Amino acid sequence: MRDRTAAIIVIGNEILSGKVADTNSAFLTRELRRLGVSVRRILVIPDDLDEIAETVDTYHRAVDIVFTSGGVGPTHDDVTIAGVARGLGRSVVRHPWLEQKIREFSGDQADEARLKMAEVPDGARLLFGGSLIFPALQVENIYILPGIPELFRDKFEGIKDRFASDPFHMRVIYARGVESALAHYLNETLLAFPLLQLGSYPKLNDPEYQVRVTLESKDRAYVDRAFDDLMARLPPDVIVRTE
Amino acid sequence: MRDRTAAIIVIGNEILSGKVADTNSAFLTRELRRLGVSVRRILVIPDDLDEIAETVDTYHRAVDIVFTSGGVGPTHDDVTIAGVARGLGRSVVRHPWLEQKIREFSGDQADEARLKMAEVPDGARLLFGGSLIFPALQVENIYILPGIPELFRDKFEGIKDRFASDPFHMRVIYARGVESALAHYLNETLLAFPLLQLGSYPKLNDPEYQVRVTLESKDRAYVDRAFDDLMARLPPDVIVRTE
Repeated sequence: MRDRTAAIIVIGNEILSGKVADTNSAFLTRELRRLGVSVRRILVIPDDLDEIAETVDTYHRAVDIVFTSGGVGPTHDDVTIAGVARGLGRSVVRHPWLEQKIREFSGDQADEARLKMAEVPDGARLLFGGSLIFPALQVENIYILPGIPELFRDKFEGIKDRFASDPFHMRVIYARGVESALAHYLNETLLAFPLLQLGSYPKLNDPEYQVRVTLESKDRAYVDRAFDDLMARLPPDVIVRTE
Repeated sequence: MRDRTAAIIVIGNEILSGKVADTNSAFLTRELRRLGVSVRRILVIPDDLDEIAETVDTYHRAVDIVFTSGGVGPTHDDVTIAGVARGLGRSVVRHPWLEQKIREFSGDQADEARLKMAEVPDGARLLFGGSLIFPALQVENIYILPGIPELFRDKFEGIKDRFASDPFHMRVIYARGVESALAHYLNETLLAFPLLQLGSYPKLNDPEYQVRVTLESKDRAYVDRAFDDLMARLPPDVIVRTE
């Protein structure tokens, strides 16, 4: 089955200094999972040209799709465009369509700071969609999105259809008792189904269950067989309910 | 002034697959900032031995303090201990104190899964503190914390005093208008105060202000002088209030 991999690079000193909590990566991770895309890594890095360039250089070769969040505004600390360009060995150019829109919008106030918003890595495509007039950017396998959560979501909604892959299928077992009492059964099922994505997550202070066991695969029949295998192994009094 | 740097490594397929949102890194980032520690990078990586080892190897040399979150339970997907050990070129050993506690607690149910919880990288120290009997682990500059948010917080609260460094000082200007209209003034202040940590954060749909400008440094006098410099440059009608 087709699998596509992704990395999410969140760029922003405000997150590393604890002034703003990153919500974009959690939103994007959930959306990509629904689309059948495997997120391999999430990174939060500073507004630093060299660090952005190095991270982009590494991940654009390591995964199928790279998303960046943040650092695309008009001020001194917005260096994502220059960082992505450097990471790909490209120059930064002013995009004619963006420049025209900014000049139309700003009139005689179109100074260097405003025109900085027209800069893109050379060869970048403008991706329209969503409710904002300003597009997202794509260059090679890198998608450059704004950091403000409302804008990030709007731009992603506008382009997400292109990322759809074969979906994941998940079954869930809610269990009672300590996680260590389940480990033996999980290991046996994993030996029989080595390609299964099997997760075991303890939950504190829940009156209904103590461990949530998830079984996942892109192959629905495989995950169903693994689910039946594990259910047959588990002591019946352990099982609270299943999904 | 003394500066200490940190990296946060969140380990967990459940986060990369969007089943659970990571809240530990945001909590820890805020706490570390208050303690005067500079977080340089946050990573979310899978429950994968090689990836954990490689990440630990990289960051334990790049920053002063590394925190890991998650992957320390009794099941097949809990490979943080083995990953940290491999990243540091150490073996995994069973810690006598942990083994004894598990045997006391579990009696004749102390099977391999339960005793897995007694494993540590060779040379690791047990760090007591917080309300849980089970300790956090330290090996070299790496602090290994559990992933369940309630336990993560409890263990960090128990050990946080050791990380205290010189504090950061912050001044804030809440401004009206578009961010690009401020860029010129921010750049001038940054030229005069090149060591200033200067951030500019647009806020959508706020009736009071449109941009939050933050000025930070470990040198209180420096940040106060930079604040005065910027306030003198900004057109008075731009300033909503300051902190």
